[in-house]
Amino acid sequence: MNRSSAVDFPIEALPYGVVAHEGRERLVAAVGTDLIDLDEAADALSGAIDPSLMRSGGLDRLLAAGRPTWSAVRAALADALAGGRLDEFRRPVTRHAPRLAWHVADFVDFYSSMNHAGNVGRMFRPGRDPLPPNWRHLPVAYHGRSGTVVVDGTPVRRPRGQRRGRDGGVEFAASDRLDFEAELGWVLGGSTEPGQTVAPGDAAEHLFGLVLLNDWSARDLQSWESAPLGPFLSKSFATSVSAWVMPLEALEPARVPHPQQSDPPVLPHLALAADGAFDIDIEVWLRVAGGEAHMLSSMNAAGSLYWTAAQQLAHATSNGATVRPGDLFGTGTVSGVERNEWGSMLELSWNGAEPVRLGPALERTFLEDGDVVTLRGGFPGRHGRIPLGPVSGEVLPAPA
Amino acid sequence: MNRSSAVDFPIEALPYGVVAHEGRERLVAAVGTDLIDLDEAADALSGAIDPSLMRSGGLDRLLAAGRPTWSAVRAALADALAGGRLDEFRRPVTRHAPRLAWHVADFVDFYSSMNHAGNVGRMFRPGRDPLPPNWRHLPVAYHGRSGTVVVDGTPVRRPRGQRRGRDGGVEFAASDRLDFEAELGWVLGGSTEPGQTVAPGDAAEHLFGLVLLNDWSARDLQSWESAPLGPFLSKSFATSVSAWVMPLEALEPARVPHPQQSDPPVLPHLALAADGAFDIDIEVWLRVAGGEAHMLSSMNAAGSLYWTAAQQLAHATSNGATVRPGDLFGTGTVSGVERNEWGSMLELSWNGAEPVRLGPALERTFLEDGDVVTLRGGFPGRHGRIPLGPVSGEVLPAPA
Repeated sequence: MNRSSAVDFPIEALPYGVVAHEGRERLVAAVGTDLIDLDEAADALSGAIDPSLMRSGGLDRLLAAGRPTWSAVRAALADALAGGRLDEFRRPVTRHAPRLAWHVADFVDFYSSMNHAGNVGRMFRPGRDPLPPNWRHLPVAYHGRSGTVVVDGTPVRRPRGQRRGRDGGVEFAASDRLDFEAELGWVLGGSTEPGQTVAPGDAAEHLFGLVLLNDWSARDLQSWESAPLGPFLSKSFATSVSAWVMPLEALEPARVPHPQQSDPPVLPHLALAADGAFDIDIEVWLRVAGGEAHMLSSMNAAGSLYWTAAQQLAHATSNGATVRPGDLFGTGTVSGVERNEWGSMLELSWNGAEPVRLGPALERTFLEDGDVVTLRGGFPGRHGRIPLGPVSGEVLPAPA
Repeated sequence: MNRSSAVDFPIEALPYGVVAHEGRERLVAAVGTDLIDLDEAADALSGAIDPSLMRSGGLDRLLAAGRPTWSAVRAALADALAGGRLDEFRRPVTRHAPRLAWHVADFVDFYSSMNHAGNVGRMFRPGRDPLPPNWRHLPVAYHGRSGTVVVDGTPVRRPRGQRRGRDGGVEFAASDRLDFEAELGWVLGGSTEPGQTVAPGDAAEHLFGLVLLNDWSARDLQSWESAPLGPFLSKSFATSVSAWVMPLEALEPARVPHPQQSDPPVLPHLALAADGAFDIDIEVWLRVAGGEAHMLSSMNAAGSLYWTAAQQLAHATSNGATVRPGDLFGTGTVSGVERNEWGSMLELSWNGAEPVRLGPALERTFLEDGDVVTLRGGFPGRHGRIPLGPVSGEVLPAPA
């Protein structure tokens, strides 16, 4: 993995990733600053784990195998690591470029941060209730493009598209309001039958693990295209996810109570008894070409997200739609209450009206070519802090 | 295939499908009322065609291979058929249940019938311009759920979901405004690089073939959920496609001029010189449980669709988003000018206000349990009429 992706994972984290090595993609797990090549380690683990799960070149077979297998594989890995039986399969992470760890089935992007949805409402519908009427009743969502999900480190080309020009006409041009959105992304596994629903209390059967997600957005294209059927080309050019998929088990110590949701009360099929939020911090960094990295904002998922992953899954299956291994659920932009906790340039620059000052002669409203956006996360483990991510991408100029 | 799917294809059609036979899924082509088992025929064709393209259990490898291979395979099949060299691999179509012929990558649903969009506008925004401001400038679209695309003959369970109740509150209930949408669906192949665009004139490189598509819709769920990010659960429970994928070559004799698009003129990246429309007729049939089939409406694609498939593809890639083998583009509901040409119950019953009379004591506003909706299509070939489809699905009751 490239240097910006290099992180130091305690043994209780054990995230999964995929790298290319000797001409083959290999499923790996991360420990410290090393990876364990699970493809090579499969035989050493084979008493406890079906080696074919480790040798398929990615996470897909494991995602299909379901919760009992996920827990068994994780336990076997932890056991073998503690016993020193995987030492010969360790290599420094920095030697490898990351690959997307799984085949993204359907990508659903939610809109679950009340501060974010409120900011958007205040910006574009001033003087009215900032939240749409349905917002507190259900986790609003839409389908994104799964074929353009890319892994940490992949450059992102500025899109062109149709928009309203300054003269009121319609033009086709390179976006000049390119933005990021700081999100979490849940990687799903297992599968359901048509007509089956997943109750919020059963979400762990399908929530395999978590990535950081940057939902790149072209605001000028978005405002022109989105009515009446929602965003399309303003989002579909690229969505970046972190190379490391953090298993749900590693996140359990970070579980905290979720919002009360009493006004209005949630309908029974979305009601969640147990703690449904996760105490995850996210930082947004912007590095300008040839310059230093600036932290634009930082936010906490538990403090920002009204709807939980369990409720999002219950909602998404409430109509009987199936879940497939590899489905990806984005939380939507995670924005806190304060300005320095907002998760997009749209909010930070208040739709371009209030440039963000990064230095004496440096400011931004939206992203410039050469800018590198990096999301970094972290959460409390049992024995210390565990990093999540990072996910990084450089903005390349639009096609000529 | 079941009896309702049995059609009679002239040799110039040669659509592809997939059936299960002796425990294995097999790629097949249809001729008359027979299928040719291409898995079994692969060796007989192997001088002209890589046999692995025929033996992968579906269309996916062929879709990935690209236009020159598509043309070569079709020519080799036609040649071998004419020479009688495939007779031993023929079996009656009716012996087999159809399978979905390919793995759907991303599903994009457009909104390209002006009459349909206009009807929706007149219904829900009376007194204003029925078309959204962007509608004549770009082919409006959104991403649908690819994991719930099902093949002809698959029953569809009535979804439950959130909606506004009659008392103004919010409730979770079985949809009572279940609808169909009569559409065409383009199956795409080949692939593009990030940042690459596909000009309208190059669309044939990626338009592999055509299916009939029923975009099942729950109108009560849709009106509650759709603002601000578009339809989600009101569509995601099921989308039905025909078992037979009609190759673009077979459709060439049906090519006709597309609409002028002069008010406003289309921007250059969407401009299309050659004839972009297809003279395809669609019929919508409704069979009530234990009763006869009634033709609800019939429409012509060329007369109803403002935007062509070539323009939809140019639009979808105009931001640099990639195309993958297996992408599916729905046209959106195809509705003609006259009432008997409308492609949804929403329109035919004018949002439930004007029931459709089917017989002395039989009427419908939306679909009832046990109703079977069947779309049948057809278009002119060089030597006679060629059928397209059918696609059929029975409405099952909502889960208890």
